[in-house]
Amino acid sequence: QGGPRKAPPIENKLPCTLEEIYKGTTKKMKISREVIDASGKTMPVEEILTINVKPGWKKGTKITFPEKGNEQPNVIPPDLVFIIDEKPHGIFTRDGNDLIATQKISLVEALTGYTVNLTTLDGRNLTIPINSVIHPDYEEVVPREGMPLPKDPSKKGNLRIKFNIKFPSRLTADQKAGIKKLLAA
Amino acid sequence: QGGPRKAPPIENKLPCTLEEIYKGTTKKMKISREVIDASGKTMPVEEILTINVKPGWKKGTKITFPEKGNEQPNVIPPDLVFIIDEKPHGIFTRDGNDLIATQKISLVEALTGYTVNLTTLDGRNLTIPINSVIHPDYEEVVPREGMPLPKDPSKKGNLRIKFNIKFPSRLTADQKAGIKKLLAA
Repeated sequence: QGGPRKAPPIENKLPCTLEEIYKGTTKKMKISREVIDASGKTMPVEEILTINVKPGWKKGTKITFPEKGNEQPNVIPPDLVFIIDEKPHGIFTRDGNDLIATQKISLVEALTGYTVNLTTLDGRNLTIPINSVIHPDYEEVVPREGMPLPKDPSKKGNLRIKFNIKFPSRLTADQKAGIKKLLAA
Repeated sequence: QGGPRKAPPIENKLPCTLEEIYKGTTKKMKISREVIDASGKTMPVEEILTINVKPGWKKGTKITFPEKGNEQPNVIPPDLVFIIDEKPHGIFTRDGNDLIATQKISLVEALTGYTVNLTTLDGRNLTIPINSVIHPDYEEVVPREGMPLPKDPSKKGNLRIKFNIKFPSRLTADQKAGIKKLLAA
């Protein structure tokens, strides 16, 4: 009490791709801030801040640069805080340490066989043949192809492949009769 | 300020079936409470409280009986509050004013045709033939077969019929070949 008050922290989102979070990355952030020189005059300076995004960091992780906000007389400068955010990915969504990929397949593929081809976040090609019938709630779990665990990046979550089965919009009477004959219990 | 304080309200759930809420019902609740007689002695009395559950009431609706809790010296007795709760139903779940029924059907039924048979909450039989192919996200909306609107019970929400399509767990090579031939684009 009685000392100079501290300005409230300044928070900024730090959008990262899933690839960046998977592999880890270094982000250089150029910031511009006001500082007070020896004569008491305020002047703008530019600084480069370096953030090491570690593999598997979660959305919402905060990185704090103490007192890196603008300087003002008689006030402790605010902390500058960056908050990890995930950019949407075309193939994968994240669920904790798991990755989820939803494949759009036809009903024929669901019933007669389908092979999943996916490129991982570090650029490897995965080929996963599915031998069973794929029903609407089917989930193929590929162990250790999820996100790295932040506490031990040598371990990984699972990749869970889901399926969006596209049904034919209409069938002829002949097709219906054929299906009844083929699939009758 | 300065007057006797009032005890906090006593809340009880009042479980109702969807049938009761659909049609409206009268619930008689036998309660036992302590009252203070003229001589200042506390004694238990039993009372019957009547609750008119109106058609379409929502879960969470509160019915308050002012000061129907136990009497104590120098305290205003607490209000007795009943909170409408919905008992789970075998066929229907409620979503606002809509009712949702999920039908378990086979893949053959989904592809070749299916007729929904349902008994409404007031005991009528509904027969709804579905002419289109039923895909996993298919929803058949039956207007005005949902819950009555509390403010105007002559109006009703919709009945939404969803489908859980049971796929065959395995297919022979012949069946697969037949499906490919039948459904090839």
